[in-house]
Amino acid sequence: MPLMDNRWTFTVEWGDCDAAGIVFYPNYFRWFDAGFQKLLRLKGLSQRQLGARYGIVGTGLVDCGARFKGPAAFGDEIELLTRIERFEEMTFTIAHTVTRKGRVIVDGFEKRAFLKAGDGDGRLKALPVPDDFRALFTPA
Amino acid sequence: MPLMDNRWTFTVEWGDCDAAGIVFYPNYFRWFDAGFQKLLRLKGLSQRQLGARYGIVGTGLVDCGARFKGPAAFGDEIELLTRIERFEEMTFTIAHTVTRKGRVIVDGFEKRAFLKAGDGDGRLKALPVPDDFRALFTPA
Amino acid sequence: MPLMDNRWTFTVEWGDCDAAGIVFYPNYFRWFDAGFQKLLRLKGLSQRQLGARYGIVGTGLVDCGARFKGPAAFGDEIELLTRIERFEEMTFTIAHTVTRKGRVIVDGFEKRAFLKAGDGDGRLKALPVPDDFRALFTPA
Amino acid sequence: MPLMDNRWTFTVEWGDCDAAGIVFYPNYFRWFDAGFQKLLRLKGLSQRQLGARYGIVGTGLVDCGARFKGPAAFGDEIELLTRIERFEEMTFTIAHTVTRKGRVIVDGFEKRAFLKAGDGDGRLKALPVPDDFRALFTPA
Repeated sequence: MPLMDNRWTFTVEWGDCDAAGIVFYPNYFRWFDAGFQKLLRLKGLSQRQLGARYGIVGTGLVDCGARFKGPAAFGDEIELLTRIERFEEMTFTIAHTVTRKGRVIVDGFEKRAFLKAGDGDGRLKALPVPDDFRALFTPA
Repeated sequence: MPLMDNRWTFTVEWGDCDAAGIVFYPNYFRWFDAGFQKLLRLKGLSQRQLGARYGIVGTGLVDCGARFKGPAAFGDEIELLTRIERFEEMTFTIAHTVTRKGRVIVDGFEKRAFLKAGDGDGRLKALPVPDDFRALFTPA
Repeated sequence: MPLMDNRWTFTVEWGDCDAAGIVFYPNYFRWFDAGFQKLLRLKGLSQRQLGARYGIVGTGLVDCGARFKGPAAFGDEIELLTRIERFEEMTFTIAHTVTRKGRVIVDGFEKRAFLKAGDGDGRLKALPVPDDFRALFTPA
Repeated sequence: MPLMDNRWTFTVEWGDCDAAGIVFYPNYFRWFDAGFQKLLRLKGLSQRQLGARYGIVGTGLVDCGARFKGPAAFGDEIELLTRIERFEEMTFTIAHTVTRKGRVIVDGFEKRAFLKAGDGDGRLKALPVPDDFRALFTPA
C-alpha cells in the first residue's frame, strides 16, 4: 500500500529532448529525484533538514532503475506519481510512475539510504532508517 | 564474455555534483549513454547512422538501472567501462562500470531496442536486433 | 514596452544546485529556453510548429547573457518572467528576469533568429523575422 | 594578452543535443564552467581549495554571455579554449572560445568574483580578487 504520494504535472521542454525529439532518458531520473524532494516537502522536510537532523550527508541512492513503455516528446504534458513503497531496515524504496494522457510511459524506482560520511576514506556509510522518518510516511 | 568494450576516463566537474558535493546520480546515466555512443563510434557507427541504415528513430531504452557502491566527488578522475553484454532477439544489454582509483563505484546497465516510429499513435515499435549489428560486436 | 509576457513559478530542486548549494548557473539558461517555449505556447505556437510553418530548423540563439545579483538555493521558490523585448529585422530579443521573494536575482536575455539549414556546409542561415510572428507579439 | 589558457577537446554527445540535432545552448555554459575548473587545476587549484583558502563559497558568476556563430551537432569534435582575459579589482573575466574544424562557433565569457556568505541575509558578498590568485595567472 502506498504510504503517501506526490503528483507533479509538468510539460516536457525543448531542452529535455534529444535529437530524436523524445525525452533524453537520464532526465527521468532528474525528475524522480525532484519528485522525491517534493514528497519530502509535503511532510515539511527537505534533504537539507534531514542532513542536519540525522547528521547525514543526505538520503543517497543505493539502487535505481526504470522501465520505458512509451516515449514523451517536446510539449507533452506528463505526470509523475511518487510514493514511498517500502521500508527496509537500512533502506527505503520510492516508486515513480510517469504517465502521459493517462497511459504509463515509465515505471521507475529509487532505493535510498540515510548516508553519513565515513571515517575519512571517502566512502559513505548507511544508518538504519530513523523510526520517526518511517512513522511520517506510515498511516496510523 | 564481453564482446567489445570502450574505456573512457574523465574528471567529475563542478556542475556534475549536487549540494552534497557528490555526483548527482542522473549524470551517471548521461555518461552511460555517452559511453554507448563512444562504443558505437569505435565500430564506425553512430546513433544517426543506425537511424538511416535501419529506418529507426534510434536505439532506445527499454530498461535501465544502476547500483551505487561509493560516491565520486568534484575533481575525481573516474573511468567508465562500457561493453555489450548480451544480445536477445529484440534487445541488447549494455553493461556500464564506473571505477574510481580502481574501485567500482557504480554498476549499471542499459537494455536497448531498435525502435521505429509506430503507426501514428506516438508509440515506438521494436525491430529485431539486426544480424549485421550483432555480428559487429561478436568475436569471430 | 513588453509585448507579451509569461510568468512561471517553480521550486529550485536538488539537482539544480552545485556543490556550493546554489543554482548551477547554466540552469538559468535552461529555464530561459523553457520560458521562451512557454511564451510561444501561450500564443498557440511551438518550436516544432514554427519549424514546419517557416521551413526553419527552429528559433536559434545568436547571442545571450545573464547578470547575477543574488543566489537561489535548494528549495527556493523562484519566478521567471519572460517577455519579447524587441524585434529587429533579422532577430528578436527576449528578456528574462528571475526573482526570489520579490527581489531580482538574475537578469538575462536571449537574442534569437529564425534559422534554416544552409547549403550543405553545416551552417545555419537566418531568415527575416516573419511579419505574422512579429504581429502575434505586438499589441494592436 | 591571455595570461594562461586551457584547451579541451571533446565530442558532442547525444544528450548534449536538442530536438533540432544541435547542441542545446545551455550546455556551452556547462562546458565554460568545466573549462574554468580545468584551468584552475592546471595551476594546482580547485574551486574547493579556493573556498578553504580564502574563506569563500567559491568563485561565483557576476555576468556571462555567449555569441553563437555556427552550430555543433551530435558526434562533432569541438575544442574549448579557456583563458583569463582580464583582472578587475573585484572581478576577473574568463574568455571561452569554442571551435569546430578550426572555425569559431561560440565566443563566450564569464565574469567571476570571489564570493563569501553574507550576514545571514542569503546574499553573497564579493571580496577583492586576492593578489596571489592574480599573480598565478600573470606572467612574470
